[in-house]
This record gives sequence, structure tokens and C-alpha cells, in this order.
Amino acid sequence: MTEFFNVLTPNDAILKITSNKSFPKSKTEIIDTFSAHNRINAKNIYSPTELPHFNRSSMDGYAIKSNDARGVSDSSPNYLEVIEEIKMGYVPNQTLKDGQCARIFTGGMIPNGADSVIMEEDTEILNENFIEIKKSLSVGENIIFKGEESKVNNKILNKGHKIRAQDIGSLLESGITKLLVHSKLNIGVLSSGDELIHPKEELQPAKIRDINTYTISNLIKSSGNEVTNYPIMPDNYESQLKIAKKAFQECDILIFSAGSSISYRDTTAKVIENLGKPGILVHGISVKPGKPTILGICDKKLILGLPGNPVSATMIFTNIVNPILNSMYNFTPINTYTECILSENISSHTGRVDYVPVKITNKDDKLYAKPVFGKSNLINTLVFSDGYISIPPAKRGLYKNSKVKVKKYEQ
Amino acid sequence: MTEFFNVLTPNDAILKITSNKSFPKSKTEIIDTFSAHNRINAKNIYSPTELPHFNRSSMDGYAIKSNDARGVSDSSPNYLEVIEEIKMGYVPNQTLKDGQCARIFTGGMIPNGADSVIMEEDTEILNENFIEIKKSLSVGENIIFKGEESKVNNKILNKGHKIRAQDIGSLLESGITKLLVHSKLNIGVLSSGDELIHPKEELQPAKIRDINTYTISNLIKSSGNEVTNYPIMPDNYESQLKIAKKAFQECDILIFSAGSSISYRDTTAKVIENLGKPGILVHGISVKPGKPTILGICDKKLILGLPGNPVSATMIFTNIVNPILNSMYNFTPINTYTECILSENISSHTGRVDYVPVKITNKDDKLYAKPVFGKSNLINTLVFSDGYISIPPAKRGLYKNSKVKVKKYEQ
Repeated sequence: MTEFFNVLTPNDAILKITSNKSFPKSKTEIIDTFSAHNRINAKNIYSPTELPHFNRSSMDGYAIKSNDARGVSDSSPNYLEVIEEIKMGYVPNQTLKDGQCARIFTGGMIPNGADSVIMEEDTEILNENFIEIKKSLSVGENIIFKGEESKVNNKILNKGHKIRAQDIGSLLESGITKLLVHSKLNIGVLSSGDELIHPKEELQPAKIRDINTYTISNLIKSSGNEVTNYPIMPDNYESQLKIAKKAFQECDILIFSAGSSISYRDTTAKVIENLGKPGILVHGISVKPGKPTILGICDKKLILGLPGNPVSATMIFTNIVNPILNSMYNFTPINTYTECILSENISSHTGRVDYVPVKITNKDDKLYAKPVFGKSNLINTLVFSDGYISIPPAKRGLYKNSKVKVKKYEQ
Repeated sequence: MTEFFNVLTPNDAILKITSNKSFPKSKTEIIDTFSAHNRINAKNIYSPTELPHFNRSSMDGYAIKSNDARGVSDSSPNYLEVIEEIKMGYVPNQTLKDGQCARIFTGGMIPNGADSVIMEEDTEILNENFIEIKKSLSVGENIIFKGEESKVNNKILNKGHKIRAQDIGSLLESGITKLLVHSKLNIGVLSSGDELIHPKEELQPAKIRDINTYTISNLIKSSGNEVTNYPIMPDNYESQLKIAKKAFQECDILIFSAGSSISYRDTTAKVIENLGKPGILVHGISVKPGKPTILGICDKKLILGLPGNPVSATMIFTNIVNPILNSMYNFTPINTYTECILSENISSHTGRVDYVPVKITNKDDKLYAKPVFGKSNLINTLVFSDGYISIPPAKRGLYKNSKVKVKKYEQ
């Protein structure tokens, strides 16, 4: 068994895994861009084409020669001949000469001879063939020029970027209908405990319903990956090893729930050590809750042991497992949070990170974060909270009225 | 046609829709709790049972009578008889008498007669039947008492709450395997424009690929709803009305892309007015980009007209459509963002909200937001940005080095 309580800081624990030479990166696959939402782009994407590929109007109005509007104003208008209405999606029929203009709409193709577009609001229709213009224009005004969106070989998307709605729009605009993305990871969840029964079963003396399988599997889905749930394992090393070996063949990653501490009943470490090399790299992280956590790599597969306590499991998944999964994708998310005023003092121990669930309330248009205290084994401390704050190891706590950053459990 | 440029502020526009007596709320349905992740809870949930339903140990150690540990310390230990090992998931066989203890593990059932648990680390095994205890304990120490998680009829979840991983855990812990949630909305997307071709087609002179259908449909998916995409509509009122009437029958909500302005080519308003009563309630919002937006209700269905410009469409979806959809669910999300230092001055006009895309960079451990300038018709201004900032109507801009809140496009 590995030495326990040789604890690492959260960052060191993550780094010890991600910097290991056996640390597995996710595979890649080609998919339709149409269905790439929330996938991680696996290759830098460069524009194959110039966009827009023709000069377009950005307004409803009239394409003109800006020279014809020189010195023009409300009190000193000019008059232009309307030689055609440029239909959307069609190439203009004529080239403008001095004193001529063409009716055009937003997105319409600028005719030869024109160098600007005067807005409808700055014109008056005189008759079928003539308009009055009442404003001067600079060259290029209200035109989106060829290549202004992107030039050939301009980089559009970085690898490691999570595909959003607008990214799909941009890729499709360039005609990129296939995309190389990181494959989703198939993560197996293995809960153990002789006291566990399925949530559909009636409560029995000394038994509790298994909730970790479902809490963890939904955290996995939220991280953009796939889940395989295995049946509850008994507190028996041989049975666990047998199930774990099967799961090891079927999944990219295994997450064990419970059995990660150091009592003789805790067999997760022993099971992991028998799945492959190098085995356990981290056993114990200087956080509360969640200290008895195991992080390992076996034959190039990530194998994790989360505490059986559902609050610890959630905090460790959010703060330790998620960053490791993101690293497999070369994905660095933006750190988002809600800034709040702490509504009461919180004490903590130096030398560890404390994760404290908080409820956010709005009072006089200010956001307050109120700690949800409770024994850390009780999942309702998470249910009654909107997010959590992290108290860094150097602090002995946080004072009432200090500013805190509240993070959500699932981003 | 409705009067345009009788613009409303974003908040007033949203309120004008959500406070209308025909404003539709989403339907509800009963689903499996196991698959309720990210759905909106539709009914307050109360605990049907006391949890835990027995006194549990929160540590690996020995269940004892705290009286037996009174005055005990490293230098003055006490000795206790170990009368049994309480197996996980089993009811203890014996009641403790003075001077007795029982081996117990985290989550194990506390035996009658015991009132606290001493941690393994604070004991020594003397022989098969006796241990030494080296620390005093208070009554109840390291015990999670019956009912400490929840009592019968305690409220677990509010209606309007978005179900997270831990919420599923808590519901299943209570044996709640079915849940009343809001039904997903089926939102039809109708893009129009004679210049549009399908993204799989080759570029042709004066034509552009339709990207709004796919940008908007992915924003809809991100909002937790379902999408029906309709084929590109021509710039022709009769054709549009015919397609819109079919879509109106098939969907809960319609979103039109393009044609929402006031030129004679813009037929969206006329189409919406012919779908039902009361029709258009808002035409024009004091924002940039996105001013020519239509919000309406027709025969109790929400009907929206977004600008054809994809940047405007994205900003309006994020800031106007999303809050309206959330209101249909009675859902109020937490406002999350990333606080950054603005890296340059931005000017804006008073009297409107400006949405400015920004790129976040990290320099000397500080986050900076750099505006991504560009014509607002170019979707790559969104692609090259990590989020956006909102400049309120009373401001003429924001100064370099001021603190800004950067929001993501999809939460």
C-alpha cells in the first residue's frame, strides 16, 4: 500500500499526474461540424477561403460614388439617378457612372463603380428614377469589403478550443463541414460498499441508497464525457479486482467511489496497484473535504479513487478530476465565478485548501455568500448551496464582509 | 407594421413580454430522476423520510461510551474491551456496557449504548480483545445522527431549480426516483434570404452560406431546449407566411432570423402579425448590436424576430431571448462572469446598452479584457472573443484599467 497522508497540494497533485510520461491524451476523430457543439477542437483551423468573397453592403440604402456626396448636406442635397435595384443573391447588372446609384439591401453585392452606401434614412425618393441624398460619405462607408471577415490562411480556431455556437457558424461560413475533435472519454464508475442498496430499493436497517454512482456519473456527463456505470461492488478485494479488470478493458478511465482511505477495509489502492504500471502516483491531497483521494495511471489509463463521502467526491471531481480531464484534451477553460460579499466569518486550517459550500442571496442589489455549514458527509450541504469558495492554504479563514469568488460545481 | 425605433431598454423589452397576460409558461412532465440532469424542477420537493435513518459513524474507529474516555489522554490512557466488529450494512449484535467498545467503519451503524466514535488514529490495539484509547471525546463526536441530513417534510428542492449532479444524489438518497420537471421547449428556426445557400454548397457570386440557422440552433440547445430547423425561406412574404404557419403548428416557439428591420424587404413583422394575437409587442431594443429585434406573442406562443446579422443574433439570444425562456421555466440563473481589467478605452453612446466582445489574456497573474473590434456583421469578432462586456446606457464608454465583468455567450 502507498504511503498515505504524504499529501500534496491540489496543484501539485494535478501536475504529478499530467506531467507523468504515461499521462494519456485523448484520441481524436473527425465529425460533422454541424454536431461539434461543446467538443474540443483538435487541430488549428485556417481559413480556406476569403470571406466575404465579394464586397457587401452593411446597410439598406443606395450604393453610390462617394464623390457624388462630397459637400452634400440637408441644406445642400444632391440628386442621383437610380439605375437598378440589386436583388439579394444576384450580381449587379450595371456599372455606376458619375451621378448614378443603385438600390441595395444589407448583404447585397456592391456594384462596380460604387465605393460607399448611403443609408435609406439619409435619402428621399423623388420619383421612380431619382433620389435626393442629404449627407456626405467617406470612401468605403457601409461596405464590408472582400476578405474583411477572413483572408486565406488566417487562423480561425485554435486547437484545444471548446466549440461554441458562433464557432460552428464561422466554420460553416468557410465551408468547413468536417472537424477533427478530441474523442469523448468513456469513464467507468465503480462504487463499493456492503451498506449500499440501489436507489429504487426500500430502506433497510444499516443500509443506505447508493447515490455516488449517480452524482459522479452526472458530473462526468457535465464534463462532456461518457459514462459506464458498473453494479455496486462488495467490500471484498477479490470481487473488486475482478470487476475492475473487466471495467479496465472496457473504459478509457476508471473512477472508484469509496475505499480510498487507509483502513484495512479500504481496498481501492490495492486494486489500483494491480491494474497496471506505474500505479498510484498521489494518495492524499491537502484539501477539506476530500483528503483521502487516489490518483494513478495504470498502463496509460487514468485511474482515480474518490472518497465515499459524496460531498468530498463532488469537490474532488470539480477541483481535481476536471482539470486533469481538461488536460487530456489540451483544454484550458476560462475561470468564471460570481463575486460576493461573505456574510459571516469562516475559520479554516492553514496548510490545506478548504472548499466551503455557500448560498448566494441578493440584498439591496448586492450579492452575499452565506456558508452552508454541516457535516461534510451530508450531500444536502451541496444541494442547499449555489456554489463554493476555496480558502487558500495560507489563510486561517476569511472575514465577514470580505469579497469572495463563488464558483459553480458544474461550469 | 408596428412603429419601429420606438425602442425599449433590454429590461423593459423582456418585461413587456414576460408580464403580458398571454405569456406562455412551459408545460411539465414526469421523468426519471436518474435522467433529470439540467432539467428545471417544477414542484417544491419535501423529504418523504428521515435521513440517515439510523445513527452512522463518520469515521473509521471504535464506537464507545464517551464517559469511558473522560479525562483520558496520551499520558493517561484507558483500556476498552472490543465486543464486536460492526459489519458495513449490518445491524450491531450487541449493546455496549461500560468499558466496552465496538470496531466500526465510516458509515457503519452505531450500536446501542455508544454515544461517540473514537478515531482509529487515537487508539492502539493491545490484543484481540482490548484497545487503548488516548483521547477524550464529547458526546456525539464523529456520529451522524438519525435525521441530521433531513427530517420528514424538510424542503429539499425549490421549484424553478436547475437540477445538478448533487441534487440527483440527494433525491435518490430519499428514494425519489420520479420528478416533475418543465418540458423542454421545441423551438423552430426560420432563416430567410435570397442570398443564402446551404453551408455544404460551393460559394457563388453574390451568395453566402447560411450560418444563422446553425448558430441559433446551437444557442437553443445550450439553453436546454430542442430545435426544429426549417429550410431557408426566400425573401417573399407569401412563401414565408406559408412556411411560418406550418412551423407555428409544429413548435412551441418560433425564431425568425433576418427580415426584422423596417425596409420594405423586411417581411418578418408582417408574417408575425398574421400568426395570431396580440402579435408584436416589441420592435426595436436600445442595444448595439441588435436594435432591429422583434418580440411578440401570437395565440400564446412566443414569436421572435432576430436580426440577420449573426453577431446581433447571438447577442440578442444571449441577453434577451435566454432570460425570456428562463422566465417560461420560472428559472433564475446565477449571474456568473470573469472579472478583468480593461486593456484599452472603449467609447459608446449613451441611451443604449453596448455589447462589446473581448478576448481575455493573463499577464503577471492578472486577467485583462481586450476589446475585439470589427464590423458588427462579422461573426469572427465573436469567434476571436472569450466573452463580452455590457456597457450600460448611462455611460459614454469605459476607461482603460477599469474593472469589467466578462460574461460567456453560453452559460
